[in-house]
Amino acid sequence: MVFWKSLFSTTEVPEAAKKAKMRRLVGFAEQIYFSTDKNIDLYELEELCDAVGWSRRPIAKVRKALHYSFVVGSLWYFRGSFQRLVGFARATSDHAFNATIWDVAVHPEFQNKGLGKALMLEMIAELRRAEISNISLFADAHVVEFYRRLGFNPDPEGIKGMFWYN
Amino acid sequence: MVFWKSLFSTTEVPEAAKKAKMRRLVGFAEQIYFSTDKNIDLYELEELCDAVGWSRRPIAKVRKALHYSFVVGSLWYFRGSFQRLVGFARATSDHAFNATIWDVAVHPEFQNKGLGKALMLEMIAELRRAEISNISLFADAHVVEFYRRLGFNPDPEGIKGMFWYN
Repeated sequence: MVFWKSLFSTTEVPEAAKKAKMRRLVGFAEQIYFSTDKNIDLYELEELCDAVGWSRRPIAKVRKALHYSFVVGSLWYFRGSFQRLVGFARATSDHAFNATIWDVAVHPEFQNKGLGKALMLEMIAELRRAEISNISLFADAHVVEFYRRLGFNPDPEGIKGMFWYN
Repeated sequence: MVFWKSLFSTTEVPEAAKKAKMRRLVGFAEQIYFSTDKNIDLYELEELCDAVGWSRRPIAKVRKALHYSFVVGSLWYFRGSFQRLVGFARATSDHAFNATIWDVAVHPEFQNKGLGKALMLEMIAELRRAEISNISLFADAHVVEFYRRLGFNPDPEGIKGMFWYN
């Protein structure tokens, strides 16, 4: 009881988290919340993408991509009234059969705490709630093992992910 | 001149093709038209999917999937006022950066004529017109070579296509 109390019961849910209907992730010492709100501050998202070393993309195009993504998932670190975007992922989908997860990022300062795994589990849960049975992604070589541990299968039955280049 | 005349100039564009703003594909003896109209007769689509041996899917879910697909491409064979669905493909997308092509099918009676290639080139052209730079797909082992010839690259830089299973 003392353990649980010290982990959860002493912290109030931040107003901003309540308002945006965020869900607190359990198992983290920090207050980490998951959100599916698509209206993310695009400059804050750009900062996160910069931090993980991605090349910059035009803000207007990013706005459009988020609008037309089926699920936009984000992780927020709260301390008092301060909040910060520390994780991101999104999925395109036909809203019926398949979804593909893109742009999975966890801020370097928050890596190696299990946030990537927690974020992916939330994304999978969201897609399953929507009765999407076929969830796919394209994994860089160094994260294939990470996704495999989450239940993603590389090249199942010889199926190959392929990319078209001009 | 005689050659071109005999191939193209003697056939009128069918009314239905005109009405649906279909484009005739050149290089085929038959009258084959490409359409991006999403309002495909779903039972005719089911017949095509049956013919290529796919397992049946609930019509209501297929309707939803087509609605939320970014591009729905179809090939139609015309003879006089008779028209028949002979090819199909669709793409999901974030409308900005990436698109993934799914459900590519050509009716067995119309295979080995280059229709699959023509269909894919039309899909790529549609997606490029929409300024989508990253076109991906998941290819069954036996069609990897077909897609490679069209410019699709398997596992570029070690990127792996992965699928999640329950």
